[in-house]
Amino acid sequence: MKLATIRHDGRRTAALEVSGGYLPLPAGDLSELLDRSDWKAVLAEAVNGHCAPDVIPAAEATLLNPVPDPRKVICCGLNYSDHILEMGRELPAYPTLFAKFADTLTDPDAEISSEHSEKIDWEAELAVVVGAELRNATEEEAATAIAGYTVANDVSMRDWQNRTLQWFQGKAFDRSTPLGPVMVTPDEVDPEAGLEVICTLNGEEVQRGNTKTLVFSAAKLLSYISTFTVLRPGDIVLTGTPGGVGMGMTPQRFLKDGDQLTTEIPGIGTLSNKFRLRIPTTV
Amino acid sequence: MKLATIRHDGRRTAALEVSGGYLPLPAGDLSELLDRSDWKAVLAEAVNGHCAPDVIPAAEATLLNPVPDPRKVICCGLNYSDHILEMGRELPAYPTLFAKFADTLTDPDAEISSEHSEKIDWEAELAVVVGAELRNATEEEAATAIAGYTVANDVSMRDWQNRTLQWFQGKAFDRSTPLGPVMVTPDEVDPEAGLEVICTLNGEEVQRGNTKTLVFSAAKLLSYISTFTVLRPGDIVLTGTPGGVGMGMTPQRFLKDGDQLTTEIPGIGTLSNKFRLRIPTTV
Repeated sequence: MKLATIRHDGRRTAALEVSGGYLPLPAGDLSELLDRSDWKAVLAEAVNGHCAPDVIPAAEATLLNPVPDPRKVICCGLNYSDHILEMGRELPAYPTLFAKFADTLTDPDAEISSEHSEKIDWEAELAVVVGAELRNATEEEAATAIAGYTVANDVSMRDWQNRTLQWFQGKAFDRSTPLGPVMVTPDEVDPEAGLEVICTLNGEEVQRGNTKTLVFSAAKLLSYISTFTVLRPGDIVLTGTPGGVGMGMTPQRFLKDGDQLTTEIPGIGTLSNKFRLRIPTTV
Repeated sequence: MKLATIRHDGRRTAALEVSGGYLPLPAGDLSELLDRSDWKAVLAEAVNGHCAPDVIPAAEATLLNPVPDPRKVICCGLNYSDHILEMGRELPAYPTLFAKFADTLTDPDAEISSEHSEKIDWEAELAVVVGAELRNATEEEAATAIAGYTVANDVSMRDWQNRTLQWFQGKAFDRSTPLGPVMVTPDEVDPEAGLEVICTLNGEEVQRGNTKTLVFSAAKLLSYISTFTVLRPGDIVLTGTPGGVGMGMTPQRFLKDGDQLTTEIPGIGTLSNKFRLRIPTTV
């Protein structure tokens, strides 16, 4: 199943992608749907009971950030083994983690603007949406608690990220991380078998990795995190980015006003974001 | 004014400290109160209109985490200039920031337990509670948006904190950061004029600093943060810890099962936390 949060006729609704369009679900968005203890039953009923007149034609729907209200957004850095090894580093024993906020997220086709950074960089990533409460979960428990997968770009303000030892402030700019366009349930995609993660800048491919080379799989990350903090339905974990970010290029390359970034995971979908960057003011 | 979240007769309520006890306010806790756009008017009415029979005697009230439901908890590291200078470092140009979650917080007298860390350390801190929405705020705007101050101990799992470059995972263990016992409004305390921040371990003083030596004042932190992410009423900013943490001692010293930690800011109050530490399991 592909699930989405759409806007149609000025209203927002959670929706199931069906042939030709979207079937509305009884929730304003997927965060609200996943907050229901019976969300799987609601989905099953929608799948079995839908009839064509209920379907919103795809052309009349705008896809929004599918999961706009997570309590926790936790991100993993340095997680693609091929990239780590090509950089001559050892594989890490523990995941490098940092946090974002719900406010950091934005829509899959949002225009992203900033007047406070001169070094805005891209990081194409697979994102995991939690579907059940997890505390001290084993990897197996974590795997069964995954509601689905979506696409993210952990757009990073490198000047702010590198002002201090802690990356957080360069990673938590409001409306800087596009998410979507849909959440795909785990029966349809398997990151451990391999999903391509592709980033293009103005049509030129800048990143391509495969999730089968993740050092810490989605289930492993959820299990590890749940050791120190509870994860709840609707929480989001970003799994890290493959090689090819602008900061790693020679010379370094950052986003410019008018640049068009696309972030794609075949089997899930594509984010398409234009950047509107004004002259930064010093802070 | 001193404001609190108390439990009385099995119920939780926001409350105003008055002579002899606490006057209940029309909210379940201070997070809920600060979420009301009219929270200042509600407080003014309570102050003017209260009569003795409404007051809950102090002996019948248990003080809880005053602000249990922040959307954002943002912490500053390396912020006491006397400690930075005594370590031979230069004063930082930018605040070092990281995030916690509402789940990280706990009650002012909570027993704190962990079975996953062998290196649990203390960090006594002044915490700031936001009282108005802040976006791109000047320092002056930020100063007027402070709802109050409270005491925190940014208890840190140093083994987890130092597993990777990012401190977050050692700083975000559920129910590890005690907060309280009350929130004091800015008319009663002035961190820039100077508040002592004191930490004792089993009665022995281990930390003592003064907020007048903060590199980044409360207002400066709020202003800086609001450049990249909106702050809302009830959000919490921790301002950093003075010298004297266990990791900095020779030999290093960490909390042991049964240890009693107190964290005090005279003029606000004291946190008192016993530690219950079991044999760690490897993760």
